[in-house]
Amino acid sequence: MSLPLHPHTEDPVPGALRGFARAHARHVELREAPTHLLARRRHPARRVGLVSGGGSGHEPLHAGFLGIGMLDAVAPGKIFASPHNAQVLEASRGAAGPEGVLHIVKNYTGDRINFGIAAERLRAEGIAVRRVLVDDDIATESADTATGRRGTAATVVVEKILGGAADAGMGLDELADLGSAVASSSRSLAVASRAQTSLHTGGPAFPLAAGELEYGVGIHGERAKQSILRPGTTKELIDRMVDQVLAALPGEGDQLLTVVNGLGSTTLLELYGIHEALAESLAERSLTIAGELVGTLVPALDMAGFSISLTRVPGEWLPWWNARTDVPALPNNHQEAN
Amino acid sequence: MSLPLHPHTEDPVPGALRGFARAHARHVELREAPTHLLARRRHPARRVGLVSGGGSGHEPLHAGFLGIGMLDAVAPGKIFASPHNAQVLEASRGAAGPEGVLHIVKNYTGDRINFGIAAERLRAEGIAVRRVLVDDDIATESADTATGRRGTAATVVVEKILGGAADAGMGLDELADLGSAVASSSRSLAVASRAQTSLHTGGPAFPLAAGELEYGVGIHGERAKQSILRPGTTKELIDRMVDQVLAALPGEGDQLLTVVNGLGSTTLLELYGIHEALAESLAERSLTIAGELVGTLVPALDMAGFSISLTRVPGEWLPWWNARTDVPALPNNHQEAN
Repeated sequence: MSLPLHPHTEDPVPGALRGFARAHARHVELREAPTHLLARRRHPARRVGLVSGGGSGHEPLHAGFLGIGMLDAVAPGKIFASPHNAQVLEASRGAAGPEGVLHIVKNYTGDRINFGIAAERLRAEGIAVRRVLVDDDIATESADTATGRRGTAATVVVEKILGGAADAGMGLDELADLGSAVASSSRSLAVASRAQTSLHTGGPAFPLAAGELEYGVGIHGERAKQSILRPGTTKELIDRMVDQVLAALPGEGDQLLTVVNGLGSTTLLELYGIHEALAESLAERSLTIAGELVGTLVPALDMAGFSISLTRVPGEWLPWWNARTDVPALPNNHQEAN
Repeated sequence: MSLPLHPHTEDPVPGALRGFARAHARHVELREAPTHLLARRRHPARRVGLVSGGGSGHEPLHAGFLGIGMLDAVAPGKIFASPHNAQVLEASRGAAGPEGVLHIVKNYTGDRINFGIAAERLRAEGIAVRRVLVDDDIATESADTATGRRGTAATVVVEKILGGAADAGMGLDELADLGSAVASSSRSLAVASRAQTSLHTGGPAFPLAAGELEYGVGIHGERAKQSILRPGTTKELIDRMVDQVLAALPGEGDQLLTVVNGLGSTTLLELYGIHEALAESLAERSLTIAGELVGTLVPALDMAGFSISLTRVPGEWLPWWNARTDVPALPNNHQEAN
């Protein structure tokens, strides 16, 4: 994060949003005061606007997922900070369909509060609102806390399935129920070998010894309960992570959606190797990958590390997962005639 | 690069290639012995196979650009090492069209030699071969050396324009001439604030003081002739780079293609901010962006930094630049009916 941004003199977010909207003008429109982004196109069958948002520093989440088959509007906050409720309100007004809006919210206190205030105002204006809370990170599973699990990379899975369902014409309550079902069928775990660069000091946000992994790190650099010595092979590390995620994953089916997500400075070379180890690990456990994403999708600035997310997927969700997406941050997923 | 790969015990490339082919089975097929990848689909009008390749460690280059509108086959070497000529030969055999194959080669000695040996063997088999050499990096411009400029991120521009032209049915000699014209209309410059992780030591591959930038770094960690103190703002840095790249860019037209390329651990937040500064800088110089790419497209493992590439583009190239691509590493670029 130390190049070429100047944390003490430049706020990187406004320029990045303008550059993003400039580069992806076919997909998105940036609106200011308060800042939000709208998808330029909407499937004609869509009756409900899908709205997400959250702190910046996790790009391409969320604006990279604006477009056909995914989101209609997003509210970007400052780095690692919730968007203001006025941003969520304007994004929701701009995105509302005839049956209202669905808020897709990662489980952090600030996001919950600001999306909640916006929802109250929308309802006062006669716009129906429901919420899906994404809370997939098993590192924060605890009986001792009322805040619950953090929301991380499973957000993309929720957004993709809901986008497909919304484009198939699903109504608000069904979408909210589906989104909650996807979220509760999803669990994630993240590890890091180097913290992200602190915007305040320019150094790593937390110390980590060579050969150690922060095991259960958060996407804002939240420390894990433990660091571990790096296992001898990638496969050993993945096996350990898979066993823990599977132990926490509700349900019974043997079909999974998988996300191998880079936390920032981890190369695609590594991420695809991790995907291969994950596929082997799941096959050894008689589980099948029904769909996958591999890439830097929900990073924590420039942290070195990755997360794996597993979603137990019933067959009836797959048409929505496989529905056409046309968004800045994912490749084309549909085969067409030439 | 230090997680979770184990440089002393694991070669990361084979697993990454298997994972890549698994995740993108709709787009690509991995073949072994010798290792190469083939695109699964080819535009029916294409008469010439487009083949590229080079060292690994620059992902998504090249395999991420396999598919409709770009490449037909690639030969991946070990990290930062040329592919063996036997790989190039097999990739070319698999990709050859009725009018032969075009090799798109970044200007490094090993790549030139291995593509050259493969080309001789192909010709002996009766397969026509031409070569486009990409040599865009102005940091290596020198009258003192016979090796010429390095090939870096303009490779993606060459591959995208040639892909569109090949899908429009262009023949081998015309493609070779077009590719050489695109390459000679393209120049790039890269800066880094931190070297990539050395696979041998696990530390940075070269030292760089805080606040300094390696100005003119290569995509294998080749040192620049100079390091500079980081300018006070992103815009100042971009202005300096733009002036140097423009001074080296042949031709007269005021329309440019631009690439803002992350070198590995640079966030999208930064890259889009750089794109915005670049657009402002070019507008101040009465230049227009006719097309752009922003992303981590040709990195140097996990180096922190970025490059900018400019291509002076005549209007007749734009239909090929804008032609539909369907590849793993770029978003959908065509609007379709729903």
